[in-house]
Amino acid sequence: MEKTILSIEQMEEINSLLKQKAVEAGAETWQDRKEAQKVSCKFGEEGVCCRICSMGPCRITPKAPRGICGATADTIAARNFARMVAAGAAAHSDHARDIAHVLHMSSENGSYKVKDKDKLYRLAGEWGVSTEGKDLYDVAHEVAEVALMEFGKPFGTLRFLDRAVEQRQEVWKKENVAPRAIDREIATIMHSTHIGCTAEAESLVRMGLRTGMSDGWGGSMIGTELTDILFGTPTPIQTESNLGVLEEDMVNIVLHGHDPSLSEMIVLASEDAELVAYAKEKGAKGINLAGLCCTANEVTMRHGVKMAGNFLQQENAVLTGAVEAVIVDVQCIFPAMAALADCFHTKFITTSPKAKIPGATHIEFDEHHAFDSAKGIVKEAIDNYANRDRAKVYIPDSKQTAMAGYSIEAIIKQLDLVTNSHVDKTGTVKPLADCIVSGVLRGAVGIVGCNNPKVRPDYSHIEIIKNMIANDVIVVATGCAAQAAAKAGLLDKEARNLAGQGLRTVCELVDIPPVLHMGSCVDISRIILLVNAVAKHLNMDIPKLPVVGIAPEWMSEKAVAIGNYVITSGIDTFLGVYPQVTGSAEMVDLLTNRVEDIVGAKFTVEMDPAKLSEQVLERIEAKRTALGI
Amino acid sequence: MEKTILSIEQMEEINSLLKQKAVEAGAETWQDRKEAQKVSCKFGEEGVCCRICSMGPCRITPKAPRGICGATADTIAARNFARMVAAGAAAHSDHARDIAHVLHMSSENGSYKVKDKDKLYRLAGEWGVSTEGKDLYDVAHEVAEVALMEFGKPFGTLRFLDRAVEQRQEVWKKENVAPRAIDREIATIMHSTHIGCTAEAESLVRMGLRTGMSDGWGGSMIGTELTDILFGTPTPIQTESNLGVLEEDMVNIVLHGHDPSLSEMIVLASEDAELVAYAKEKGAKGINLAGLCCTANEVTMRHGVKMAGNFLQQENAVLTGAVEAVIVDVQCIFPAMAALADCFHTKFITTSPKAKIPGATHIEFDEHHAFDSAKGIVKEAIDNYANRDRAKVYIPDSKQTAMAGYSIEAIIKQLDLVTNSHVDKTGTVKPLADCIVSGVLRGAVGIVGCNNPKVRPDYSHIEIIKNMIANDVIVVATGCAAQAAAKAGLLDKEARNLAGQGLRTVCELVDIPPVLHMGSCVDISRIILLVNAVAKHLNMDIPKLPVVGIAPEWMSEKAVAIGNYVITSGIDTFLGVYPQVTGSAEMVDLLTNRVEDIVGAKFTVEMDPAKLSEQVLERIEAKRTALGI
Repeated sequence: MEKTILSIEQMEEINSLLKQKAVEAGAETWQDRKEAQKVSCKFGEEGVCCRICSMGPCRITPKAPRGICGATADTIAARNFARMVAAGAAAHSDHARDIAHVLHMSSENGSYKVKDKDKLYRLAGEWGVSTEGKDLYDVAHEVAEVALMEFGKPFGTLRFLDRAVEQRQEVWKKENVAPRAIDREIATIMHSTHIGCTAEAESLVRMGLRTGMSDGWGGSMIGTELTDILFGTPTPIQTESNLGVLEEDMVNIVLHGHDPSLSEMIVLASEDAELVAYAKEKGAKGINLAGLCCTANEVTMRHGVKMAGNFLQQENAVLTGAVEAVIVDVQCIFPAMAALADCFHTKFITTSPKAKIPGATHIEFDEHHAFDSAKGIVKEAIDNYANRDRAKVYIPDSKQTAMAGYSIEAIIKQLDLVTNSHVDKTGTVKPLADCIVSGVLRGAVGIVGCNNPKVRPDYSHIEIIKNMIANDVIVVATGCAAQAAAKAGLLDKEARNLAGQGLRTVCELVDIPPVLHMGSCVDISRIILLVNAVAKHLNMDIPKLPVVGIAPEWMSEKAVAIGNYVITSGIDTFLGVYPQVTGSAEMVDLLTNRVEDIVGAKFTVEMDPAKLSEQVLERIEAKRTALGI
Repeated sequence: MEKTILSIEQMEEINSLLKQKAVEAGAETWQDRKEAQKVSCKFGEEGVCCRICSMGPCRITPKAPRGICGATADTIAARNFARMVAAGAAAHSDHARDIAHVLHMSSENGSYKVKDKDKLYRLAGEWGVSTEGKDLYDVAHEVAEVALMEFGKPFGTLRFLDRAVEQRQEVWKKENVAPRAIDREIATIMHSTHIGCTAEAESLVRMGLRTGMSDGWGGSMIGTELTDILFGTPTPIQTESNLGVLEEDMVNIVLHGHDPSLSEMIVLASEDAELVAYAKEKGAKGINLAGLCCTANEVTMRHGVKMAGNFLQQENAVLTGAVEAVIVDVQCIFPAMAALADCFHTKFITTSPKAKIPGATHIEFDEHHAFDSAKGIVKEAIDNYANRDRAKVYIPDSKQTAMAGYSIEAIIKQLDLVTNSHVDKTGTVKPLADCIVSGVLRGAVGIVGCNNPKVRPDYSHIEIIKNMIANDVIVVATGCAAQAAAKAGLLDKEARNLAGQGLRTVCELVDIPPVLHMGSCVDISRIILLVNAVAKHLNMDIPKLPVVGIAPEWMSEKAVAIGNYVITSGIDTFLGVYPQVTGSAEMVDLLTNRVEDIVGAKFTVEMDPAKLSEQVLERIEAKRTALGI
């Protein structure tokens, strides 16, 4: 079967049609609000507006180079930036905390069970939790308690730092960027950015690095590990993406947000025989689940649930007129979704006390009765099917097959396909390292992050990915970047035809697409651990590897936290959107230059995806040259 | 001896002379920077500017009523406000965490010892730490560990909540504003204010209340308790205040900041015989220590160290040209102090990794060798004495005696003076409660908070205090408010002559001034516990008491956190400066009205101190009427 992959222009055309539906329905979308915001505030844009105390707000200008307290542009931009890291780390980590609490309430007969027992026991072993003669769930609860203590322990640094290649651990120790308890790092930044505390930009940047680390090697890594334990470690799975995954004659439920403790239960509930029968009773052919944003990534990775789209697609889903319910939990949810849903029959259901939105139907998800709670929510959607206005329905003919589910374990299993088991051990990253060292693959990049109306949505993601694979650079992706790739057909195994000869050969032999979907944004910890595994295999520090991180369309504070832990992990990071620090020459110098002296990696910012691609490829080749490979 | 108490106008005249010194020295001060900032940004001022993601910044106007994500003025103002609470709670609590770590490193022969053993044992008892047969320092370390767990424990709510009058605890439970671990509450707010999380203003206000509580009944209360254990519970002590406390012929060291673990050691070092001899060797008559901001309050309360002034006096201290060193740790330190000190011989010494300031001499204070570390810092000041330029010196003739040291324990001891020990138990707040019930005292107010150039510095503090005491309302004060009172002679016992007859009589019988200095900003926890003790004695919930909190000149995020826990403790709070939420009618309604339905108290904002005083007195009388007293 020949596949028609939509070009970005074709996708944009569909978006225009959906925008037309919005106009017809009298609904506002992000494009209208972007337009209304007109030119954004220069002071905020450059990071030189301070609202940290009520003497101000103060703004830095040539005639007013200091705020009332004396804070300079450098101080102000650095404080604002540090607070973005703190908020981002808080978001990821608080998500992970919830997962840890869910593991703590898991039980043989409850809604939440341990699905990956091996992973639990491996983690128990790593953390010194004894397992001998213990009930599985006692082990699970003890591991959960150890995890929870990582958020608040009074002494020591994070446990997962021990996983890093030794050379990296030494850097962290020497530079004092090894994080203590996760929440403590967040509180420390909030304290040190308070009026009358740290004014030195470098000091704030260093705190940002450490707090970012508390996300990457703390919250996010804990989140990923415990999620795998609870809901299973992903294995390669086929799925479909883009709005065409919605169905004309089924109850369409769109899951949006981040926390799998909700979405996993909704998946179960949507498969519940009684509820499926109930949907049929209401005239539908069944229940069709689709995901948005990172929740899509989570349930795609484990169940092949279809992906309706990424961040700037959330309103489009409602505009199809075919969605009975958008069920959300936390993060990246437009508050505008409530008013938009009101223009259609769609029910916009918030479920988390951490993210209430005016105008939404709030049904608090009760983790203690998780399955029943999920069933109740799904029933709301089914009951709403009768209200669908067929005249308003437009489901675009855009649907693309994609492979997901590439956990490290899954990748290693694929790599085993080319391991000569007579010579080498299976179950290692050696084949990947060999390909990189030999030059069959020139390097690897992780492409991650959001959408941002400051750049043409999805265009940068797609262009950069195409440039990478064409140049024999293997791509791993998470979050909204992974979904952009999916929409463009780049997660399909056939996309290897777009790859250079080296990568194409690897894809064929290892039976993978050239772009590996590694999960949600918290799963960037998987990427970090994969790079770390290669570094350990080659016994070299991470900055030496021809590996780069790219966030072409980032927009959230989580992305800022991620950027900080990625560079602190020793991986150069390229951004397609400027952080709001450009009003401080020192901050620009720190982030794009001096930080390299601290952690061996730095940020580069380039808004043009073609130029950014070139620079990435140059960086990769420079690293190869330095290694003599 | 008749005392001349300077009027506010006289103090302002001195400030003008000091400002003239700045002009002569080519030095910039806050007045210049305030002038340069001109009109402050309306969007920031009203709280409707959002910089929470990099799609923006977005600003709310009539033509752009929503940010790109759909966030309204209500959402944006509420998120910004909640983050102020988080930062304020982080500042106080992180200070307390340091004190807990210091208690954890205390030892028989180390720099840090346990000074109030009784208080340690009382707290151990309260927290279920067994003491029997244990070494004092083992108990201290265990108590410190329990305290440290309050910042990060995975389960349960804060221990000190149990101290509250039962009716209050019920409200907290019912309204879900009883905080869990301190850092967790901070992280939760940072998460829930992330893009795409909570958009509902009320939900954010509730989180602010809970996070504020994690400061007041968490960090701050822990800070105060452990500080008393380490350095002694304050008892009434005479001191002097205002810049006249600096000495012409001594090495003047100004301590500025917050954390007593530094300042206590500097006090000891300044009394060290060798260092005093060294100072004399260098031509000085000795070492003269004076405090600024809350550090002043801490060392005044325990040692009678003189108080040079409050927040907006920090630059004035340098402008005297008579200060050899300003030694700072954290919070409320103008970064401008570095450049200002450069215009004089003054050494501006930062000591904390949490508050590095460009241009300062950074000598990191080493708590593990605290006394030696402090001696090294004091020596720097002595060495600088030779550099003082006598031509630049102007020490104003402004010095006022003041009483400080009114811990709850000290207040109760004073109250015992009027307890008929044949009838009643001593050691209770009964006499205070009796005075309030009988109407001899109409009520009590706590006046706290900063200075803020938005209002005439110190004027509001002083005017309101005078109005209160003239109307038989007893005043307790902390922080910069307490220092304003000190400068105006209101902490002197003779100030009872400015009081109404009831209060005057009480002051005479109990031998107290009409305004009781209860300590630093973290010591607002003392005020809360005093009010709570009266509520317990009268067996009624706190909102019923004729008691009010006032922050006439607040400016910091800490003050926002304080305001939140004061109202959540059931005490109406009057502010003299608008919080940056006025762009949201809903936030204004929530904070000044609807919050009363949640916690039984609310905010009132009034910039005119005369009007504010009237409203406070009305509120007090209304509470009395409601009680039928």
